[in-house]
Amino acid sequence: MSRRLLVVGGSDAGISAGLRARELDPGAQVTVVVADDYPNYSICGIPYHVSGEVQPWQSLAHRSSADLAAAGLTLRLGTRVTGIDVAGQGVSVIGPDGAPDVLGYDELVVGTGARPAVPAIDGVGGPEGLGPADGLHLLHTIDDMHALTAALTDRPVREALIVGAGYIGVEMAEALVARGIATTVAQRPAEVLATVDAELGALVRAEMEAHGVEVLTGAAVTGVTRAEDARIAVTAAGRSERAFDLVLVVAGVRPDVQLLVDAGARTGAGGAVVVDETMATGLPHVWAAGDCVVTHHRLAGVTWLPLGTTAHKQGRVAGANAVGGHARFAGSVGTQVVKVFDLVAARTGLLEHEAVAAGFRPVTTQSTLDDHKAYYPGAQPITIRVTADADTGRLLGAQLVGRLGSEVAKRVDVYATALFSAMTVDAIADLDLAYTPPLGSPWDAVQLAAQAWSREHRPPRTVAPSAALA
Amino acid sequence: MSRRLLVVGGSDAGISAGLRARELDPGAQVTVVVADDYPNYSICGIPYHVSGEVQPWQSLAHRSSADLAAAGLTLRLGTRVTGIDVAGQGVSVIGPDGAPDVLGYDELVVGTGARPAVPAIDGVGGPEGLGPADGLHLLHTIDDMHALTAALTDRPVREALIVGAGYIGVEMAEALVARGIATTVAQRPAEVLATVDAELGALVRAEMEAHGVEVLTGAAVTGVTRAEDARIAVTAAGRSERAFDLVLVVAGVRPDVQLLVDAGARTGAGGAVVVDETMATGLPHVWAAGDCVVTHHRLAGVTWLPLGTTAHKQGRVAGANAVGGHARFAGSVGTQVVKVFDLVAARTGLLEHEAVAAGFRPVTTQSTLDDHKAYYPGAQPITIRVTADADTGRLLGAQLVGRLGSEVAKRVDVYATALFSAMTVDAIADLDLAYTPPLGSPWDAVQLAAQAWSREHRPPRTVAPSAALA
Repeated sequence: MSRRLLVVGGSDAGISAGLRARELDPGAQVTVVVADDYPNYSICGIPYHVSGEVQPWQSLAHRSSADLAAAGLTLRLGTRVTGIDVAGQGVSVIGPDGAPDVLGYDELVVGTGARPAVPAIDGVGGPEGLGPADGLHLLHTIDDMHALTAALTDRPVREALIVGAGYIGVEMAEALVARGIATTVAQRPAEVLATVDAELGALVRAEMEAHGVEVLTGAAVTGVTRAEDARIAVTAAGRSERAFDLVLVVAGVRPDVQLLVDAGARTGAGGAVVVDETMATGLPHVWAAGDCVVTHHRLAGVTWLPLGTTAHKQGRVAGANAVGGHARFAGSVGTQVVKVFDLVAARTGLLEHEAVAAGFRPVTTQSTLDDHKAYYPGAQPITIRVTADADTGRLLGAQLVGRLGSEVAKRVDVYATALFSAMTVDAIADLDLAYTPPLGSPWDAVQLAAQAWSREHRPPRTVAPSAALA
Repeated sequence: MSRRLLVVGGSDAGISAGLRARELDPGAQVTVVVADDYPNYSICGIPYHVSGEVQPWQSLAHRSSADLAAAGLTLRLGTRVTGIDVAGQGVSVIGPDGAPDVLGYDELVVGTGARPAVPAIDGVGGPEGLGPADGLHLLHTIDDMHALTAALTDRPVREALIVGAGYIGVEMAEALVARGIATTVAQRPAEVLATVDAELGALVRAEMEAHGVEVLTGAAVTGVTRAEDARIAVTAAGRSERAFDLVLVVAGVRPDVQLLVDAGARTGAGGAVVVDETMATGLPHVWAAGDCVVTHHRLAGVTWLPLGTTAHKQGRVAGANAVGGHARFAGSVGTQVVKVFDLVAARTGLLEHEAVAAGFRPVTTQSTLDDHKAYYPGAQPITIRVTADADTGRLLGAQLVGRLGSEVAKRVDVYATALFSAMTVDAIADLDLAYTPPLGSPWDAVQLAAQAWSREHRPPRTVAPSAALA
């Protein structure tokens, strides 16, 4: 009898697990239970459909259902999982017709992902909270996307407020501007994009403002209420009430762990389910991967850092091990990138406060460097912050902001690869990187920023002073 | 008395040595002897001045003479070195006025670089050979550049022939096309750009042809003679004689070692001067760096691979050690990139035949992958060839060709960084690389190409077949 692998969740982790399992064990029966009707969708692409750049919305699918079927995955769409019977190796579900069922398994992979965080704002969340019908939207699923695009199409939306200036907030600001909507972004912290230091967040904010986005920082939204003309009145601490046609709340995500917790799994960092590097939950025959589980980080230890790239890798590991493999998740270094209008902001490794928490003694140097030789037309500045340990010189992180087209996304990957190998800052300067005048410099910007760190924090002892020769 | 450091050569290696020496020993007296009047010029930028993109030509200088003076370097321009007296620690020179002189030193760094190779073509080289006055040019120095641009300005050049299709050949083809010149490139090998495999060279050739360049491969030019109307008649094996207004011979370079050899230095790989990783020549107080010396390669051992990036690094090491430092050249991995019209071709590590020579058992897989998610507008294919050792899975090299703007130059740097750390192909897939739909994929193209190699050459054993569960 062939092995029965059951996967809960049809996003990055679940699908990666199912595909890898079939690759290693072509005889495995792999069933994927998907809560909605959109298996294997790229939720990172949602802003680009809302902006109008990606049409039709179905092209957001990494693979079609037909592709998945051809790869040997059996999909149970519109099916909600209500419980896991660990001892009995079965999962209770409610199908699209509302009928309960139990699906048995030999091995189970859970990839329930994350849910949008609901911030403490009067009128958001709970039974009395405003919803899409009122013009208030959360944005995490393809259904959420459909509700939002319907709202933008059904009635004139002239002014929109985005609450939150993380990745989705800044990407959605660009999307709404692309639709001709006067867009305001409000967030509590003092600078946008808390995933980079404020010095770089300021560059991102300037780019948003240059494209007409009103950015309110230090602006804690405290309440939303229905207002006249189908608008939403918004109150924020210390500011006058304002009304918008649409409010989008994108305040981060939380791990969706209820199913696993109910089954007896432990939670750890960020409230996510604890797994080891094999993606084992500790519950017999139950593996888990993706945004619902903790993240092993090569510098920070066990943390929670929900990213699609990590979900793909963890899912692949879980799928391999669920069919008898011996895979291990090699660990994240926290690499992330976002395009904001014509700017690209990227980071890898740790910010200083994260590095301190991980037991390092971080110091940071910021440099602004040309992406290629200044004499060749079109050179653009890249601002780079290099963080490394003051005692050992070990690279701890790098953050970059530069114009679209200046290869920022792959320059951060050079640092990410160096971090993966625990390189020192000095070793970055030793790397043999590519150079041609239209695309780089004899010392690449990546290396010049590393050398700047060394000059500031590890000044060379002037060797064998000349005077000694006298 | 302060230390006297004498540097012979004002290009990448020599200037890097001088600057690093002053950085570590601010009291050192550093004199740089420069054969021409152009210290610290970017000879890699010559094609972009010839094309008209870089104006004025002086902007090709990495630093001005004033910058170099401010950094504490004393320049002796137009000064030819005729001999090194190793025992007497002095160098014989002939100054710009023709007067001989001897410059004493405590430590000497030689960075004489390379000379253009003169191929065995009748009428090229030697006292009877054609020269710039006839419309035949070599191209290696700023003086060569001036002679070429003068020739292009002084009289109508409608048809030009470039002999050689290496980096300079393909860059100069683009430059001449930019000037509206009907350009033919002829070379003996069967495909252009021998630094990459023929499969990728073919893509480069197609790009050149799409921009109107006539590319003749397998075309060994055998002779050039003066023809009527101030043209040059060119004969090639098995082809009819053709005339051109201008012929540019760019057939690679050879290390310029005469000075060091006369002083007793040994030569090795490629005829370059043997140095150790500290850039010591073995002659007392004589260091050497750049295109005139061998290259320590992290995979291939001691070879000769003249590149500006390497010259900068070696020069920095030589300069440090010449003032009592303890620097070592960390080694090249052979990373190179070239822009050819709207295409970028890059490589790092070893081609198969080089890997075999280095004792590996290389196998290669070629993939064509999108630079970013296909649903986001503007996705472009990148063709990647990954070479790794069949026995160990160790990454040995990567070659990439893609459109300008698809971050090929920094994607090769990810492989270069992985090579530097002796990673396996499987570890490439474990890297935590940046992803956002406009700029990448959840598995970056770099990783998908590595996974393709593993699928072809290390197919997973299907683990614990399902049947065993029966």
